[in-house]
Amino acid sequence: MIKPVIMVHGGAWSIPDNMVDANKEGVKAAVLAGYKILCMGGSAIDAVEAAIVALEDNPCFDAGNGSVLTADGKVEMDSMIMDGSNLRAGSVGCVNSIANPIKLSRMVMEKTDHVLLVGEGANKFAGEMGVPHVSIDSLISDYAKEEWERFSKSEYRSAVNTMFKKRDVKEELVNSGHDTVGAVAVDAQGNVACGTSTGGITAKRPGRVGDTPLVGCGGYADNATGGVSTTGHGEGIIKVCLAKHITFLMDQGLTAQEASVKAVENMYKRVGSSGGVIVVSKDGDIGQYFTTDRMARAWVKDDQVYYGVDIHDITSCSVDGLNHKIV
Amino acid sequence: MIKPVIMVHGGAWSIPDNMVDANKEGVKAAVLAGYKILCMGGSAIDAVEAAIVALEDNPCFDAGNGSVLTADGKVEMDSMIMDGSNLRAGSVGCVNSIANPIKLSRMVMEKTDHVLLVGEGANKFAGEMGVPHVSIDSLISDYAKEEWERFSKSEYRSAVNTMFKKRDVKEELVNSGHDTVGAVAVDAQGNVACGTSTGGITAKRPGRVGDTPLVGCGGYADNATGGVSTTGHGEGIIKVCLAKHITFLMDQGLTAQEASVKAVENMYKRVGSSGGVIVVSKDGDIGQYFTTDRMARAWVKDDQVYYGVDIHDITSCSVDGLNHKIV
Repeated sequence: MIKPVIMVHGGAWSIPDNMVDANKEGVKAAVLAGYKILCMGGSAIDAVEAAIVALEDNPCFDAGNGSVLTADGKVEMDSMIMDGSNLRAGSVGCVNSIANPIKLSRMVMEKTDHVLLVGEGANKFAGEMGVPHVSIDSLISDYAKEEWERFSKSEYRSAVNTMFKKRDVKEELVNSGHDTVGAVAVDAQGNVACGTSTGGITAKRPGRVGDTPLVGCGGYADNATGGVSTTGHGEGIIKVCLAKHITFLMDQGLTAQEASVKAVENMYKRVGSSGGVIVVSKDGDIGQYFTTDRMARAWVKDDQVYYGVDIHDITSCSVDGLNHKIV
Repeated sequence: MIKPVIMVHGGAWSIPDNMVDANKEGVKAAVLAGYKILCMGGSAIDAVEAAIVALEDNPCFDAGNGSVLTADGKVEMDSMIMDGSNLRAGSVGCVNSIANPIKLSRMVMEKTDHVLLVGEGANKFAGEMGVPHVSIDSLISDYAKEEWERFSKSEYRSAVNTMFKKRDVKEELVNSGHDTVGAVAVDAQGNVACGTSTGGITAKRPGRVGDTPLVGCGGYADNATGGVSTTGHGEGIIKVCLAKHITFLMDQGLTAQEASVKAVENMYKRVGSSGGVIVVSKDGDIGQYFTTDRMARAWVKDDQVYYGVDIHDITSCSVDGLNHKIV
């Protein structure tokens, strides 16, 4: 038995000052939703799912409610979940009209012989599973609409350059962007799980699938090493298989933190893309790193919760001190 | 300048005796189509595309013309291409009504800011690019229809178990199956490329995307190590990121052949799935391994062409001796 650990992120991007508090509160609430399950003896996969549902339901984040819009003004969501105890995974790409893509990903994992379902086939599967159909309008936040107004004129590449600019690149920070959410956990039995969910990047081409639902890119979980969830410029993350790169490095003896730094810096060096990662090793060690301006993240370890958005600014307090009823 | 090398596969599965000759001739013709380009000073990416077009156009193989059918009797094709000189990649999932998904993948790589387009969005992109629309009937072979008749009753899992049974598992070989095609090459400039294309697995659920279009799963190319194309049980390949695993192992000092054996055996050990790989290292060394009954493959190295379907039965002859006009 080990002490359970869980970590979540709400995206690595140029989070504007006026969204910092909402981001911090959002990741804190999500990590506690997952931690509650772990404290009751629940599994890592259940904790990851619960944490991501909390992030998807929060319009502050680009996943579920709050998803950004495609070039033609629609919602297409991607998501994945992976169980490190058996390497089973389930993912969906380009789904719409459902509130929680992470739940549908889990159904793909548990109810089909497949890993990835996309588009019309994935939406049809949601119907077969009895997942409630929600209106697309109910998923679109005012903020996502505003962002689309701005970037649908200047196009996708402009959205990428603005949202995922490298931290040390000096340029005016415009109030823009949004990004992917994710969670990783190790439970008392030593089982590792990860999950990631997103609306993608504003002004993406319809049919575009990013890194999020791709095993080894948007996330990876393996009881032999640990779990990873990634965020940032999806096309760059795909080209280097960022999540799998981190577990390979851990398998070679690097710590979760060393592997995080090495893999994210390698991505910038090889393909010029910025992003961030959260990692929990099989022993419960934390890794986190990002090359964007900010990354919203929170974790619970040894009954302390930690959260923040800047690279060196982390708040911590005891879980008990939060007046959250954990057990 | 190095001597160019190219290798292709026509799928790792239980190839029945009556399809052996057509498989051998098909991979030989495809590898020569690619080699011709390399001999004229062409790029690895052009050679890979040409070889895969030859395989897609041959109804003997499960890609393009000859694609197998989904559970509801339709065609949904997946494909990817990757350029090892810059890690750029293009992929499509669940496309229909086009003859050569590999060409569309290359357009995604070169004409968009994305890596992966799927479903309706990918089909719409094909239209925008002026790719000719072909009737779905023109893609369906008699063999694919027969196979669907057999497996649409017994379902996807039965197709997987029959087609991708492990070589040393004794059971009656039924005349069934089909699988993915792929190519890897290194050109005279030392640039590496890979590509993979498939109709998937008979009786797959509509919307299912396999490993083929997923970077790091169905293929990977990196000038720093080499190129890989994979084939076999897609869901298993995804869970271990088979192609990326091989380039990681090569990066650690294993030869192309050692990495091929280690990664494919690891897949069977970790997730019980069978399949095969072809690898060309940046120095032009060959790797090939499969755990299925057979894998159709061919390669050209030092002006000798090699081809076969069984593990120890490889025919070789000089390229000149084939009366193929190479230059």
